[in-house]
Amino acid sequence: MADRSVLRVGLAGLGTVGGGVLTLLRQQHDTVLRRAGRAIEVVAVSARDRTRDRGVSIDGLAWHDDPVALAQDPSVDVVVELIGGSNGPALAVVETALGLGKKVVTANKALLAQHGGTLGGLARDRGTVLAFEAAVAGGIPVVKALREGLAANRFDRVSGILNGTCNFILSTMRTTGRAFDDVLAEAQRLGYAEADPTLDIDGHDTAHKLALLATIAFDIPIDLQSVYVEGIRHISPLDIEYADELGFRIKLLGTAARTGRGIEQRVHPTMVASTDPLASVEGADNAMVVEGDFVGRIMLQGRGAGAGPTASAVVADLIDIARGHNVPSFVTAPEPGLAAVSIAEHDGPCYVRLMVLDQPGVIADIGAELRNEKVSVEALIQRRHQPGSLVPVVLTTHPSQEAPLLRALARIAALGSIAEPPRMIRIDA
Amino acid sequence: MADRSVLRVGLAGLGTVGGGVLTLLRQQHDTVLRRAGRAIEVVAVSARDRTRDRGVSIDGLAWHDDPVALAQDPSVDVVVELIGGSNGPALAVVETALGLGKKVVTANKALLAQHGGTLGGLARDRGTVLAFEAAVAGGIPVVKALREGLAANRFDRVSGILNGTCNFILSTMRTTGRAFDDVLAEAQRLGYAEADPTLDIDGHDTAHKLALLATIAFDIPIDLQSVYVEGIRHISPLDIEYADELGFRIKLLGTAARTGRGIEQRVHPTMVASTDPLASVEGADNAMVVEGDFVGRIMLQGRGAGAGPTASAVVADLIDIARGHNVPSFVTAPEPGLAAVSIAEHDGPCYVRLMVLDQPGVIADIGAELRNEKVSVEALIQRRHQPGSLVPVVLTTHPSQEAPLLRALARIAALGSIAEPPRMIRIDA
Repeated sequence: MADRSVLRVGLAGLGTVGGGVLTLLRQQHDTVLRRAGRAIEVVAVSARDRTRDRGVSIDGLAWHDDPVALAQDPSVDVVVELIGGSNGPALAVVETALGLGKKVVTANKALLAQHGGTLGGLARDRGTVLAFEAAVAGGIPVVKALREGLAANRFDRVSGILNGTCNFILSTMRTTGRAFDDVLAEAQRLGYAEADPTLDIDGHDTAHKLALLATIAFDIPIDLQSVYVEGIRHISPLDIEYADELGFRIKLLGTAARTGRGIEQRVHPTMVASTDPLASVEGADNAMVVEGDFVGRIMLQGRGAGAGPTASAVVADLIDIARGHNVPSFVTAPEPGLAAVSIAEHDGPCYVRLMVLDQPGVIADIGAELRNEKVSVEALIQRRHQPGSLVPVVLTTHPSQEAPLLRALARIAALGSIAEPPRMIRIDA
Repeated sequence: MADRSVLRVGLAGLGTVGGGVLTLLRQQHDTVLRRAGRAIEVVAVSARDRTRDRGVSIDGLAWHDDPVALAQDPSVDVVVELIGGSNGPALAVVETALGLGKKVVTANKALLAQHGGTLGGLARDRGTVLAFEAAVAGGIPVVKALREGLAANRFDRVSGILNGTCNFILSTMRTTGRAFDDVLAEAQRLGYAEADPTLDIDGHDTAHKLALLATIAFDIPIDLQSVYVEGIRHISPLDIEYADELGFRIKLLGTAARTGRGIEQRVHPTMVASTDPLASVEGADNAMVVEGDFVGRIMLQGRGAGAGPTASAVVADLIDIARGHNVPSFVTAPEPGLAAVSIAEHDGPCYVRLMVLDQPGVIADIGAELRNEKVSVEALIQRRHQPGSLVPVVLTTHPSQEAPLLRALARIAALGSIAEPPRMIRIDA
């Protein structure tokens, strides 16, 4: 008969993170026992290939070809879902486990961003736990900080560097002056970027994580559809150079903020003042900044991905479960009257770069189009150049609504003297 | 009959923080109810002077002249102790409340650093809670991060800027070039420093907080007596200038680290590389850096004091209690075999400043004394000067045990050409 004092874990998915969880729970067995008050042990596993060498032994563990069978295994108290993907087996495993009243720990932001509302409701109905610290910012305990440590605050804003791949690429572009494609290829060689990097560099991974942070910070239902998403493919060395000159660094930020109209959620490259603590978060690090009405500004920084940090977060959730800790996964009674604010209603300063054929009067034409939309220019940089050549004209605007700025830029783009589509990067206000 | 679903709080101490807690619980009543699942309300208060205007009404609350009577008040479920001081009424209130099986939330680091072991044991015996997030780093949830969010890690080191007064003074000295006494006086005028600033500037407040962090990080009993404590009174503008030149910033750090010999706990001014994230923590901010074997390096930063941040942390503990969360206050089964390592055994690089009468051969004499103790010099700065005048000679050492370095410095101090006691500031390795 199994020792009831042991928390028995079933591990669905044995990739890098799954291997990390197995290693951690073995290596740290006594530490975890001392802190949790009971042992936490993996008793069953499921993965695609039983024979693959994972550098960690699965001898003595029950094996399930089908992860759903793992969730049903009566020897399993808690299912750790590390399969990934927003549907398919990951969803089936989590639904099965919660349906049986079993506790679930997952690192799967895509799954939660899509189905978190339903799954959280299922967990609540069955009186069980759906925990996901590892789904956002890897080893940094951002979920716990927002939901528990800072729970006494009304938040005005939560913002973060939530994707290490993008931050590595942008940091490396800045320090080396190299182009996006070149640095992306290096990130792929180093294992910082996937073979198919779309989810990361187009901002979707950040959007998934932001949607989870926003639901916790603002007591609103998960609403991935309302998140504006823009990636970093269009960032050029030229923009990074101008950012430097203007006193900014370009970061891919996920930002959820309370405005006069409701809650805006947006993911896009952002000009951050070089004196801002987020500006010095470099390489593959992640960070979250949150502003609460009583606590002020709090920043958490650390490694946002990788086997070790992610395993650290997964096992933190397991320790919480072993200790009997249970905070509802998602808000049960949303704050009333908080509308989703679209990006068109976003109000803030902006950086714009235009590639201009040097013709007399072009600056006047640009100025006129902006003035017609009541967008006011804060600074303008135009360098000396060879007559007849293509030159960058860079300007920053005072805070403006986005719709009129976009209208002005569309008309500017249509001017005969503008050679490329205008580039805009929002400035962190 | 009282509504059982309300968590009824008795507030002992109505200074700045007590007022903040009252204000927060009123202003955030609905938010707290939504997140905690039940209302949290102050029902009784105790303070020295009933009539003082605190800018917040205590009408309708039960009043107790004696805080111990507040702890005994049957209408009180949780006692929040904000009296301060390591003995006297604060200790009596906490002992009484825990003895009655009531939950206690305190911001009192001095009390816990002295009596935390006993009080934690009392809480455990009575099956109740002693929570103290507000005792360390104000609003930054460092206790929760270490004890829960990062609990899967074996920690190698926890280190922090834990006293806002000292950080304000050192930051201001650096940016203005002004002297310690001058900036201290300004800090007192601004309310950043107490009329009696001893506890802050001599490092004792940091030591109290460090002792609490160390017990959580290393699963060792609280051991304030083993903490080496050195304050910032002796830091001169000259040292700050040289630090800058050498690529460092001077911070008062509390550091607990695992060494080959056990755990060292030390509070002293520290030269931190200017590229280190702790170097850019300026003004009255606090920060904690922790290194875990799986998670890597995590930093948390924010406001470490003041009514708002401290109230945020106190109410976070109350929300935990309302949710039924209960993690033991302190380690119940210490990690065996972890000895306390004294500062004499500390091994690290060091900055030394000597004020030298310009005489031929003095550098050779200094070098000889260091070499006799096998302390090796990494860098030496001696500027050009007027013959016969007093000149600073600054050197940094390679990592060295502290005992031999101190022996060498004692003999150097006795040289006829050395005009002032040598100044040493440890470098963060």
